[in-house]
Amino acid sequence: MKNLASLIDWNSEDILDLINHASKIKKNPEDYSDILKNKTMLMIFEKPSLRTRVSFEVAMTQLGGHGIFMDAKDAPLGEKESIADTAKASSRYCDIIMARLYKQEDIEELAKNSSVPVINGLTNTFHPCQILSDLFTIKEKKNKLNGLKLSFVGDGNNNITHDLLLGCSAAGISISVGCPKTLMPQKWIVDIAKQKSKISNSKIEILNGAEKAVKNADIVYADTWMSYHISKKEKSQRIRLLKPYQVNKTLMANAKKDAIFMNCLPAMRLQTIPNISPEEVYRGII
Amino acid sequence: MKNLASLIDWNSEDILDLINHASKIKKNPEDYSDILKNKTMLMIFEKPSLRTRVSFEVAMTQLGGHGIFMDAKDAPLGEKESIADTAKASSRYCDIIMARLYKQEDIEELAKNSSVPVINGLTNTFHPCQILSDLFTIKEKKNKLNGLKLSFVGDGNNNITHDLLLGCSAAGISISVGCPKTLMPQKWIVDIAKQKSKISNSKIEILNGAEKAVKNADIVYADTWMSYHISKKEKSQRIRLLKPYQVNKTLMANAKKDAIFMNCLPAMRLQTIPNISPEEVYRGII
Amino acid sequence: MKNLASLIDWNSEDILDLINHASKIKKNPEDYSDILKNKTMLMIFEKPSLRTRVSFEVAMTQLGGHGIFMDAKDAPLGEKESIADTAKASSRYCDIIMARLYKQEDIEELAKNSSVPVINGLTNTFHPCQILSDLFTIKEKKNKLNGLKLSFVGDGNNNITHDLLLGCSAAGISISVGCPKTLMPQKWIVDIAKQKSKISNSKIEILNGAEKAVKNADIVYADTWMSYHISKKEKSQRIRLLKPYQVNKTLMANAKKDAIFMNCLPAMRLQTIPNISPEEVYRGII
Repeated sequence: MKNLASLIDWNSEDILDLINHASKIKKNPEDYSDILKNKTMLMIFEKPSLRTRVSFEVAMTQLGGHGIFMDAKDAPLGEKESIADTAKASSRYCDIIMARLYKQEDIEELAKNSSVPVINGLTNTFHPCQILSDLFTIKEKKNKLNGLKLSFVGDGNNNITHDLLLGCSAAGISISVGCPKTLMPQKWIVDIAKQKSKISNSKIEILNGAEKAVKNADIVYADTWMSYHISKKEKSQRIRLLKPYQVNKTLMANAKKDAIFMNCLPAMRLQTIPNISPEEVYRGII
Repeated sequence: MKNLASLIDWNSEDILDLINHASKIKKNPEDYSDILKNKTMLMIFEKPSLRTRVSFEVAMTQLGGHGIFMDAKDAPLGEKESIADTAKASSRYCDIIMARLYKQEDIEELAKNSSVPVINGLTNTFHPCQILSDLFTIKEKKNKLNGLKLSFVGDGNNNITHDLLLGCSAAGISISVGCPKTLMPQKWIVDIAKQKSKISNSKIEILNGAEKAVKNADIVYADTWMSYHISKKEKSQRIRLLKPYQVNKTLMANAKKDAIFMNCLPAMRLQTIPNISPEEVYRGII
Repeated sequence: MKNLASLIDWNSEDILDLINHASKIKKNPEDYSDILKNKTMLMIFEKPSLRTRVSFEVAMTQLGGHGIFMDAKDAPLGEKESIADTAKASSRYCDIIMARLYKQEDIEELAKNSSVPVINGLTNTFHPCQILSDLFTIKEKKNKLNGLKLSFVGDGNNNITHDLLLGCSAAGISISVGCPKTLMPQKWIVDIAKQKSKISNSKIEILNGAEKAVKNADIVYADTWMSYHISKKEKSQRIRLLKPYQVNKTLMANAKKDAIFMNCLPAMRLQTIPNISPEEVYRGII
């Protein structure tokens, strides 16, 4: 596998290999402190980021290499030159390219035309690095992947849900998505996940309701209700729509006793949501 | 001391220890060229900067590590998530956090919630790194700290004056601030400095007038009259107010013959001050 | 030579020395992987850039050092302090300064006041690093410089044409510029190039027409017709003016059979030029 544009092509073995390799690096960082010496990763950001940016740049440093931060505002992709040209030129300079973009087709165009590996650092459709590191965390906390149940509650039509569907089904984790009817995951992605779940013998449920989804879960997962593209006007409407999917003690009581809660951050807590009237504000929005 | 949020808790010994350690690094840089290998410092900037940014990033490189520049415009502190969350997440990735912020309370919130050291790279209230490096320079030039007299003339209600008060009084340098009545240092900070000066047996004077303040000074210190937050309208008013505090040959004649002049830069010279009528412009604004 | 502000002072030997040195580094990178250890290059960008930015930052990494990216929007040159002060302060911190600026006089002011080498990473007048690396490529492809013919077609009054004139004439490459009468290279630069061409025994032609210029060329060189400063309104006018200078198969047929085509990128292809009516759009704009 040269590129990491999505988890579509990943199977259980790919995921476990990656987790095992990451575990080795985490345990013995000094063995890897020079393996990327003199190597560079170009990091192109169309969307702002704290965690993705910092974690990638730190990783390059810890492996002895260097991450180059490129704000796409300074050199908009596909504007002064084609994305293909950017990929060809950049991959003559750099050893890896990572990009955080709006459109999935743009990361795939970059990957197709690059002579070096291209990593998807988030698009509107997928967020594979987030989900691979979540699977790493789950393995650390639960000591296994196969046979677990993960419940995602909230907006089902987003990059996190899509890659959770692909990643969990590949790894043998049964996944139950609880979301409003108007915010369902994209069907073509659910279809691919269903094929994976047959191979790994896991289950996939898409439910309109939070409690059923969370039933007997080992992991309860939530994402922000407010993505980058959501206008201020839509915000209060979305809060009303997603309020029944809030993760709180009552909802968590439906999960297993030792269930863990995960959130891909940033977590927008009630006091930081602007323009919301008091009656719309309630505890525990994450 | 885990954090460097201000000089409030610093005493004479702390300052001399730091200066001695910095001296050793400056004399034998090759002994320290790898001590921060694979280590990262996250540098968060709400306010633009040339010197603070470059000096920190160079320092990390010279010590074998890496500084990550994060423009807070891309990820505004406390907006998408709480400052506490940013501190907790960032300190899982990075080994040090440095931040240049508007509000002192924000750097303290970062420090409180971070598991790694947090360094104040300037706030509206304090600028400890500037003053610590000034004390280093004074030690280099005068070969001592204790028993000297430093005069600050200009706007007394700013971060530089505040940390000069704290740093000098701790180090045994008598400090005389000459400033307009409307631009006095904050009383609570003067009070802390006075306590420090009793311990170090130094003096503190806050005077409304430049000549008296500079009398017999070993060091004359000035800062820009135009901080980031000052509007164009206020500029000519401030020039009139601060004109009597201009450092020029006449004023310097009041200091000791071997007195040195210090300025924390950038220095806005007359030809670079826009929207000022000719009669308001005069030589030597620094 | 301390600085690289333009190619005005460069002769044939300087260019060949640089190319030979670069060749050695390219062939044996491991011999140079630590030579800039703990060293920093400050990179100041007034104009956005992908290639210049990334190639310099990668180069610093491959040589063991670190490039500091400074967006001049955050600290505009000559605004808060004089360019001389910026040069003096920055060169106390950094080991090299590279700047991509609008005005040639600004890079020269930086160079004059800096205690460390200053490299011109593009101005409105010159782009010496681009042309030096082009000469490196030409040497790789043609195995010599002296005696070749390079034809530049398009806008003659730009930084690329100017430094091609200076670089080719110094290196003994005859240069033929084909451009509209309203877009001729600056006369003072042509005059310097003519002096160089006498020494290297090469020829310089400035022609208003593409076919004659390309006749028997070893290298055909084109730059974008749309520089940073060109407004949307001027764009269609420039396309009409420069259409006869388009590099296509018909034009290339005038060059030598083994002629190579070069472009300094980014290449704006027809489908990426906005606000142009269909009849103005044609194949092969580069």
